[in-house]
Amino acid sequence: DSTLKVFTLNSNIELAQEIAKHIGIDLGKSSVTRFSDGEIQINIEESIRGSEVYIIQSTSDPVNQHLMELLIMIDALKRASAKTINVVIPYYGYARQDRKARAREPITAKLVANLLETAGATRVITIDLHATQIQGFFDIPVDQLLGVPILANYFEDKKLDDIVVVSPDHGGVTRARKMADRLKAPIAIIDKRRPRPNVAEVMNIVGNIEGKTAILIDDIIDTAGTITLAANALVENGAKEVYACCTHPVLSGPAMERIQNSRIKELVVTNTIVLPDEKRTDKVTQLSVAPLLGEAIIRVHEQLSVSKLFD
Amino acid sequence: DSTLKVFTLNSNIELAQEIAKHIGIDLGKSSVTRFSDGEIQINIEESIRGSEVYIIQSTSDPVNQHLMELLIMIDALKRASAKTINVVIPYYGYARQDRKARAREPITAKLVANLLETAGATRVITIDLHATQIQGFFDIPVDQLLGVPILANYFEDKKLDDIVVVSPDHGGVTRARKMADRLKAPIAIIDKRRPRPNVAEVMNIVGNIEGKTAILIDDIIDTAGTITLAANALVENGAKEVYACCTHPVLSGPAMERIQNSRIKELVVTNTIVLPDEKRTDKVTQLSVAPLLGEAIIRVHEQLSVSKLFD
Ligand SMILES: Nc1ncnc2c1ncn2[C@@H]1O[C@H](COP(=O)(O)O)[C@@H](O)[C@H]1O
Ligand SMILES: Nc1ncnc2c1ncn2[C@@H]1O[C@H](COP(=O)(O)O)[C@@H](O)[C@H]1O
Repeated sequence: DSTLKVFTLNSNIELAQEIAKHIGIDLGKSSVTRFSDGEIQINIEESIRGSEVYIIQSTSDPVNQHLMELLIMIDALKRASAKTINVVIPYYGYARQDRKARAREPITAKLVANLLETAGATRVITIDLHATQIQGFFDIPVDQLLGVPILANYFEDKKLDDIVVVSPDHGGVTRARKMADRLKAPIAIIDKRRPRPNVAEVMNIVGNIEGKTAILIDDIIDTAGTITLAANALVENGAKEVYACCTHPVLSGPAMERIQNSRIKELVVTNTIVLPDEKRTDKVTQLSVAPLLGEAIIRVHEQLSVSKLFD
Repeated sequence: DSTLKVFTLNSNIELAQEIAKHIGIDLGKSSVTRFSDGEIQINIEESIRGSEVYIIQSTSDPVNQHLMELLIMIDALKRASAKTINVVIPYYGYARQDRKARAREPITAKLVANLLETAGATRVITIDLHATQIQGFFDIPVDQLLGVPILANYFEDKKLDDIVVVSPDHGGVTRARKMADRLKAPIAIIDKRRPRPNVAEVMNIVGNIEGKTAILIDDIIDTAGTITLAANALVENGAKEVYACCTHPVLSGPAMERIQNSRIKELVVTNTIVLPDEKRTDKVTQLSVAPLLGEAIIRVHEQLSVSKLFD
């Protein structure tokens, strides 16, 4: 069978190194730099003819830069006769632009899928797509892995008492349910309602949280408005303490300030998105998805199902 | 017949306004902003159903940002039932990555063509592609306009005596010939040679420049190394004075410093790329391509040939 090669681009270099180590190979030799005018220059510095190539790249901020790096790398690999081009996108950017919410909106999550296929990607491996429907935007195989087991294991090891897993909105109930099953805990839901037009939203809590240790879970935490309001509402309504967790720590704009000033005791995230130093505060714990992605790559390369990884 | 609409993105807003004015319409209403995490958000604020839409956007620095704005806008227009989506790309970025010069290089100029078609572009209007072959990278119609007439007109109006048009390298001779024909002047060529390996290049000048007013012409001036070395060689070899001109003023990195310190008397460029204030020095003259693009849009809309524009 064909050689397995793993290349990294610029979004998640450490994660890629960890993945390669997990698999037991060195990263493929390449350089991704910029010309004087900002155009991306990619050099692949070893033969990949006939190889099964995996590229590690999140389309995180700067998203357009990271996406173009990925597309250009795919183009170079295709022209250099790679046998398969598997793109490992731990965080799939533009996932929230997944439908026309209003007239004349783009569906950028679908556009990105089309661009990846046009460039020459033959498979996508990703974690926690904001909407599972995005799998259907592709005509190539998509393996979606889940962050919940990694997050749940961490809380299990903490041996917390009397847990309740809380979804910050109705859209996240399925995810909270999965987490709760693993922790053998009940769930609660934050039910935001606007009682009358032009009246402030009310944070109503469905489920029993009184005296409990609440674990809020979401897929993405971006500006952290939803999660910090939810945390504070939980404490005000009698929760003993509040943890928050998510797979993708986008943490843009006011996010860190909000988290630091909130009642969240600890924020647990994964490394699908790199945290710059100023986001690595005492409150933030980052868990690695490298073993998960490493196993997924090995299983895909051996033509085994990756659904095993969810057990 | 269908309504003609012109939209702008963020690369060349003033040029787009000038084009709309030339055509005698208002720019289409839209906003192109960014979410907190850097993702592009596009809103088209008027119906474009059944319209023939022209989008003005150069893929200049920041090239990946500008390209993604363009692709997302095309996607939004397509989903909003535009009849045709004509992309006007005054400066086509990534044009120098137009072939595999070495093993395992991408051909990004072709990738970009594929991405534009995948997004839904139905026609491209552009000026001075770095390589004319890029037209063949598209399966949709491409109208390539020329910057030479605009530049030549400017020098004609200056009524300079005893001109020689100079190509800074062998690749630019055809362009220099076109300019020279318009100015009824002879041409010369800078013939860079390396006499022996590991010996500095020699700037040999083919053609008579003694006592003449030299006009150097290129398509792109990027870091300005070639053009400033050529200008200085011309003066050292007896040219009376040296003008330089190009269509696309990329002017990255050391370009402005080199130009200011060179023997170039005046640098004449067009506005296919916006010049930030620090590049608008006394030495730099910028000419508008708006009348050219405005006429091209009118002619395309009326289904007339644009080659008329070259007379
Ligand atoms: N990068 C982004 N940051 C914030 N909001 C976004 C972003 N991308 C899309 N959206 C908006 O988020 C909404 C979808 O989010 P959701 O309801 O969580 O799926 C839509 O109204 C989008 O316009
Ligand atoms: N943005 C860029 N800046 C500088 N050089 C580039 C750029 N893009 C491509 N190139 C290189 O320029 C060469 C082609 O330029 P040319 O010979 O003028 O067509 C190739 O060797 C490319 O690797």
